Amino acid sequence: MTAGNQEQQIELLTSTDDDHGGVIVELDKPMDSTTFVPILRASISHWKKQGKRGLWVKVPIHLVNLVEALVKEGFWYHHAEPNYLMLVHWIAESVNTIPANATHRVGVGALVSNEKGEILVVQEKTGHFQGTGYWKLPTGVVDEGEDINAAVVREVKEETGIDSEFVEVLAFRQSHKTFFEKSDLFFVCLLRPLTSDIKIQEVEIDAAKWMPFDEYAAQAWMEKYELMKHVNKIYLAKMNGWYSGLTPVSTTSLPSDDKISYLYLNAKGLKRCNSL
Amino acid sequence: MTAGNQEQQIELLTSTDDDHGGVIVELDKPMDSTTFVPILRASISHWKKQGKRGLWVKVPIHLVNLVEALVKEGFWYHHAEPNYLMLVHWIAESVNTIPANATHRVGVGALVSNEKGEILVVQEKTGHFQGTGYWKLPTGVVDEGEDINAAVVREVKEETGIDSEFVEVLAFRQSHKTFFEKSDLFFVCLLRPLTSDIKIQEVEIDAAKWMPFDEYAAQAWMEKYELMKHVNKIYLAKMNGWYSGLTPVSTTSLPSDDKISYLYLNAKGLKRCNSL
Repeated sequence: MTAGNQEQQIELLTSTDDDHGGVIVELDKPMDSTTFVPILRASISHWKKQGKRGLWVKVPIHLVNLVEALVKEGFWYHHAEPNYLMLVHWIAESVNTIPANATHRVGVGALVSNEKGEILVVQEKTGHFQGTGYWKLPTGVVDEGEDINAAVVREVKEETGIDSEFVEVLAFRQSHKTFFEKSDLFFVCLLRPLTSDIKIQEVEIDAAKWMPFDEYAAQAWMEKYELMKHVNKIYLAKMNGWYSGLTPVSTTSLPSDDKISYLYLNAKGLKRCNSL
Repeated sequence: MTAGNQEQQIELLTSTDDDHGGVIVELDKPMDSTTFVPILRASISHWKKQGKRGLWVKVPIHLVNLVEALVKEGFWYHHAEPNYLMLVHWIAESVNTIPANATHRVGVGALVSNEKGEILVVQEKTGHFQGTGYWKLPTGVVDEGEDINAAVVREVKEETGIDSEFVEVLAFRQSHKTFFEKSDLFFVCLLRPLTSDIKIQEVEIDAAKWMPFDEYAAQAWMEKYELMKHVNKIYLAKMNGWYSGLTPVSTTSLPSDDKISYLYLNAKGLKRCNSL
């Protein structure tokens, strides 16, 4: 792509338009920064004339040599992943409406409860409880693009070899500054086991077993963990039939959208109302 | 700080230990990369001898000239915010246990419901519904470090001038790839208004008013939005007294922790059980 008149035959960066009056550039061709700077300047000038507002430039890590030039031309960081850095620049006079970066990590904890009143517990090789002999619930992190109800089933399978079925989100906790400035959402989930033979993952897990809930809840360490005491009460209320958490219903968000998302709602409360 | 023997008087980077056998460096002093590289190499060599594993280097944007040197020495990107880039490097033989970056953005939608059976609705100046005349719920994004129950009250106040009190999370939706590769959690919240006089925020909002819920739910656009139809049913079930969402209870996560987090649970279900 070339621009006319003022930029006289200087090649411009290849860009695609976004839905908000901006452009997205994905750099891929290695070049030195002295070649890059005039191309970048001509491109910015071209986009300004077009009335563009937000400029997004995705720089793969092997083109790290171009990052300094972008910052010197007015770009700043938006987000980064191991293999790329996304920079942004707002070239309009209007108020900057560039959306914020992801702010939360999402974790899951599993109450896998069988018909004998036992739950699935583990001892981990690392972390707070390492070497203490305490039994705890399987927990894990939700991967990028992964559903909460799938993540908790995967974590249980990975750590203990147990297949399970998602029942509901019993509760969730939001906490802050858990990891630099980032926040954390932790979903406590109830699962129904589909198998019973445990096979532990040797790397992360020291031991796993089925444990009567009362014995689990009576462990001395529990007394100091206010959060876990709440979770234990919730579990008992659930077992007594009094408690409803939120269950996933698949839905679409937009009319044009073929992406299925899960909406987590109190299905029992909704059903009672609709059956009136 | 200086190292002995081999590194002979080469200054090392100032670092603090993290809780996982690693070190964190916050660069702040401007220098050119030819000065920086030998200091960085000597520091890495020193940390290797100490048996350190994960190395974290936070580079403020004004020191962007040092990023390329870090990548060439084996570092990669972990995350970025507008004013800094965090790089990591794993120098141990063991499996890399560097935690993942934040994966989710968190949004809120507000059902602010008064005693007359009206809800608070707005028309936005930008977005999907711009210029359509459709009335929708106030929505917004949860800031880094902000509680969900505070964020939704803040958004309602900002957009409409209405003071309100958080009641509960009625439901939440998780969706994927909403913003590059990132996922999204959207919490639908019930609020009780404390004031009634509307004062709109001119920048984002075209109009706001109290609208009978039936009239809101009967808008033609609603028919195409599966998610909103679910939310409407939930609202009606709630108004009929059949539905319980999750309400926040303040708690601490760790014994040593003085940080308060909110655990969102079905307080009604729990109360019924405990009163047996």
